[in-house]
Amino acid sequence: MIGAIEAGGTKIVCAVADRKELPRVAERISIPTRTPEETLPKIVSFFKQYPVEAIGIGSFGPIDVNQDSSTYGFITNTPKLAWRNFDFLGAIRAAFDLPYFWTTDVNAAAFGEQQYGAARFAKNSIYITVGTGIGGGVILNGKVMEGRGHPEIGHIYINQLASDPFEGNCPYHSNCLEGLAAGPAIEVRAGQKAEQLNATDALWQIEAHYLAQACVNYTLSFAPEVIVFGGGVMKQTHLFPLIQEQFQMLLGGYMETTAVESFIVPCKLRDNAGIVGSLALAEQLI
Amino acid sequence: MIGAIEAGGTKIVCAVADRKELPRVAERISIPTRTPEETLPKIVSFFKQYPVEAIGIGSFGPIDVNQDSSTYGFITNTPKLAWRNFDFLGAIRAAFDLPYFWTTDVNAAAFGEQQYGAARFAKNSIYITVGTGIGGGVILNGKVMEGRGHPEIGHIYINQLASDPFEGNCPYHSNCLEGLAAGPAIEVRAGQKAEQLNATDALWQIEAHYLAQACVNYTLSFAPEVIVFGGGVMKQTHLFPLIQEQFQMLLGGYMETTAVESFIVPCKLRDNAGIVGSLALAEQLI
Repeated sequence: MIGAIEAGGTKIVCAVADRKELPRVAERISIPTRTPEETLPKIVSFFKQYPVEAIGIGSFGPIDVNQDSSTYGFITNTPKLAWRNFDFLGAIRAAFDLPYFWTTDVNAAAFGEQQYGAARFAKNSIYITVGTGIGGGVILNGKVMEGRGHPEIGHIYINQLASDPFEGNCPYHSNCLEGLAAGPAIEVRAGQKAEQLNATDALWQIEAHYLAQACVNYTLSFAPEVIVFGGGVMKQTHLFPLIQEQFQMLLGGYMETTAVESFIVPCKLRDNAGIVGSLALAEQLI
Repeated sequence: MIGAIEAGGTKIVCAVADRKELPRVAERISIPTRTPEETLPKIVSFFKQYPVEAIGIGSFGPIDVNQDSSTYGFITNTPKLAWRNFDFLGAIRAAFDLPYFWTTDVNAAAFGEQQYGAARFAKNSIYITVGTGIGGGVILNGKVMEGRGHPEIGHIYINQLASDPFEGNCPYHSNCLEGLAAGPAIEVRAGQKAEQLNATDALWQIEAHYLAQACVNYTLSFAPEVIVFGGGVMKQTHLFPLIQEQFQMLLGGYMETTAVESFIVPCKLRDNAGIVGSLALAEQLI
């Protein structure tokens, strides 16, 4: 069997699977993300029940993924103070001496979609989640892409529309992509929850324009075969044709892509992308 | 010996080197880029003189670098009509049955700087050239990064300053990075050649701001250890402190980098980066 941990800011999902039955999850639990002292023993108890041979971990970040670093495996500069500079991988490894794949939650989700979801045909793909924040993972030649660290492509700068007076609400960058286009930015402009906005509201045009710009930048940077969107905001499926249309206009034919309807697509695994991706990463270790 | 071809829009440089003496170039010629019919025989004649075991090619683009593609090795949608859809790699391979490394001129330069220049200490690095256009190459874990195609990171969108009324002059995207910050954009704003502008001219602040935004986006996308700048515009060395200062402000401490003075740096190989990089890519094939 293989194991997986998807560590989010509010809950931590642990799962095990028979590696021959992926993407089927055999057993899972969901644990509220409290302090490491309170949470870790529950994770360990779960995995003690199963003959697990490898574990994939997709964690909220930022995390240290640099194997040359003395803090490899740590959650680093997170606003969740109890987890800041916590050696998450080390704590799990202390309980189970196994091979581990350690990466971000969004990289794990990107790998899940690439192995079993909307990017299954692709060697190179991007996964973007648009919710209370914007995060993304990159698969390059079938592998999770990491440099000295992991990508943070939800925070790139894009060109703000002159018609959009909102100053942006990213605490680090004000009007980066997350500051202009995550759920909270839509809600500030609308004065109400994004999901209550009418599908024809002009604010969706602004949202689609920003996400399309991001897709152009990702396309020019990574040359993927497909860009997969997940996250709460993207449940507004009327956004997809708007993004696709804006993307084509903004790319200006500069780079060849497949037909835009199959290039910018919704995720398929939905809330399972992260845990299935973490399982798939564990499977590759064996 | 190993060989290299750096194919540019105005000239094609061919070189050979003893692989044990890199980065020293043993012999080289420079051929004007005319039609393939006129130019190819000169390239072939040059290499016929030497016992070359592998050739690295860094070509102007766009080019097809996807080994699964039927047009792998072609120059594709270039404005230079005589070279459009020309099987450059195939033409060279027909003359010499050798191992080849086929990539863009900027990827080759990025590799040259990473092997022998300003990024020598790095496993992950970016090379950006700012001249009549803006182009960039990416080295990831010591290797040239390519997805389904090669990066085109000179054309990403960035946030145009409200104080900058210039509409941008990229023929594809108007106000992408190249349209706002390549040499011709500076010259349109200034009404004179960029190199004639005083180093204290306020236009350099705009230029530095845009290049700093690009550096933020590259940092968030690729997590490099260093970003190396080349190209004619970057001979204005007073730009570096301005870019470094703006970069720190714009990144907002979001991602850890080395001290900014050693993170955003000028190239060391200068005009040799592309040919030395192409030689180094050939060397890796043996």
